[in-house]
Amino acid sequence: MNSATDFQGWAHARQERIETLLQTLLPAPEIAPQRLHQAMRYAVLGAGKRVRPLLAFAAGELAQADPERAAIAGAAVELIHAYSLVHDDLPCMDDDVLRRGRPTCHVEYDEATALLVGDALQSLAFQLVSEYRLAADASTQLEMVKLLAVASGSRGMAGGQAIDLDAVGKTLSVPELEFMHIHKTGALIRAAALLGARCGNGLDDKALAQVDHFAKCIGLAFQVVDDVLDAEAPTATLGKTAGKDARQGKPTYVSALGVAQSKAFAAELRNDALKALDGLGERALRLRQLADFIVLRKF
Amino acid sequence: MNSATDFQGWAHARQERIETLLQTLLPAPEIAPQRLHQAMRYAVLGAGKRVRPLLAFAAGELAQADPERAAIAGAAVELIHAYSLVHDDLPCMDDDVLRRGRPTCHVEYDEATALLVGDALQSLAFQLVSEYRLAADASTQLEMVKLLAVASGSRGMAGGQAIDLDAVGKTLSVPELEFMHIHKTGALIRAAALLGARCGNGLDDKALAQVDHFAKCIGLAFQVVDDVLDAEAPTATLGKTAGKDARQGKPTYVSALGVAQSKAFAAELRNDALKALDGLGERALRLRQLADFIVLRKF
Repeated sequence: MNSATDFQGWAHARQERIETLLQTLLPAPEIAPQRLHQAMRYAVLGAGKRVRPLLAFAAGELAQADPERAAIAGAAVELIHAYSLVHDDLPCMDDDVLRRGRPTCHVEYDEATALLVGDALQSLAFQLVSEYRLAADASTQLEMVKLLAVASGSRGMAGGQAIDLDAVGKTLSVPELEFMHIHKTGALIRAAALLGARCGNGLDDKALAQVDHFAKCIGLAFQVVDDVLDAEAPTATLGKTAGKDARQGKPTYVSALGVAQSKAFAAELRNDALKALDGLGERALRLRQLADFIVLRKF
Repeated sequence: MNSATDFQGWAHARQERIETLLQTLLPAPEIAPQRLHQAMRYAVLGAGKRVRPLLAFAAGELAQADPERAAIAGAAVELIHAYSLVHDDLPCMDDDVLRRGRPTCHVEYDEATALLVGDALQSLAFQLVSEYRLAADASTQLEMVKLLAVASGSRGMAGGQAIDLDAVGKTLSVPELEFMHIHKTGALIRAAALLGARCGNGLDDKALAQVDHFAKCIGLAFQVVDDVLDAEAPTATLGKTAGKDARQGKPTYVSALGVAQSKAFAAELRNDALKALDGLGERALRLRQLADFIVLRKF
């Protein structure tokens, strides 16, 4: 079995584990308030590449973490990601009707329910990282809660969304684009890797900093690839409305650099990401493979 | 000095402390993204009765907690409360233009910003309860994080909002109304009291259960009084649009019981709340006074 096939098997097994786990962790659809719980499950289950949980698993392997702890950490980050998509799709934000190949949450349910779905998914994420034992000691775990909170908040993901709002109709320089994406998608991707790593005991501060730098590079690469796919791929492949960023006047890497240079930039970020893992040995294999998975993906 | 005057001084000093603390804890308005940070400060600062932080302080006194720890716990709960008001006022929810005597957040800024303000305030609340040392040991503090997450989520406050949405245009029985309010406002009021209490070391499980029962009663009393004020008080006194619940077809205690019986019910809940504190001695003084503050308030 070559390494690529092996990665697919590894990733698929973990995507299935996350799906099962999320099914268990989300409140059952028959528990009151039923409509809210059904809508939360609709927004989270049955779709998504689960890139953030995969990162948590991969960083967990590097740190010799119990995979079940990395799974909870990854699920918590995925809930934050899912809530941000539900809110981002609302009419007052991107006003999108299609997500992961299905009607968006507010289209399938209603706007008020979608708003509450996002709010409740965020609370549930913090419930998970405080309820389950994830780290060797409780102080480390409190630091993990803080890490997730900062990555989600106004100086992380939510702040990135605000920068994105302000950027509509503007021309951003490449450093300005980078600042936006380091917040909007990068913060949570870094949190996924760091939380996975901190579920284990195997990493010193230097190795944690390497994981963080790796995640920063692939977080940005993820966005560059997203922009290229948005410009090139058909809607059916993406599972979300293609070409929308350009139509909405949002600055993208493609609008700033063109397609060819964007692709070259993504390749450069992949190399930087791999270099960040130098010296971490074989246990960093899954992280290395994830860098390729993210940069070479077609959807 | 009689006890009532004394309570006013006690409450006023703590309301000022919370205001100063929130000013410090919220990101400065000049930090990027500025508009988001300005809107977060607008939504939280300069108004509000700060009932939840007062409860955290009062329960903290009962448990002989460091008041600075109770202050952080109270501030975190107040941020969750403030986020819920911002989201609740959005056009897709209650569509309100006036809150605490000022334009609501989405009127003063815009809907997308108000959505992100709520999201980021929730994250900040969880940052506070994980970043500052609040309890004697980190495991207790993790339990406090979980308590706040559960109280905020789909089986707490956000769930209560969903039940409220479903109830529009319906006639609810008094037990159904109670179920709704125990979630919508009660969960967070209980969390405020319990978090304040857990900042100290002075309470055993029995005393914690007493505080919880007290908070459950005054949480409900708070809502009954709210419904009476909404039916009776002018908008200028309330600082929010009066009589709106009835116009929006929302079931209230006044619509279920009438004004006179609602007032009697609030008095009964006050008595139950005070009875719950039996045997806790002089250190429960501020909790007792808060029960009166909540039931006898005019706004």
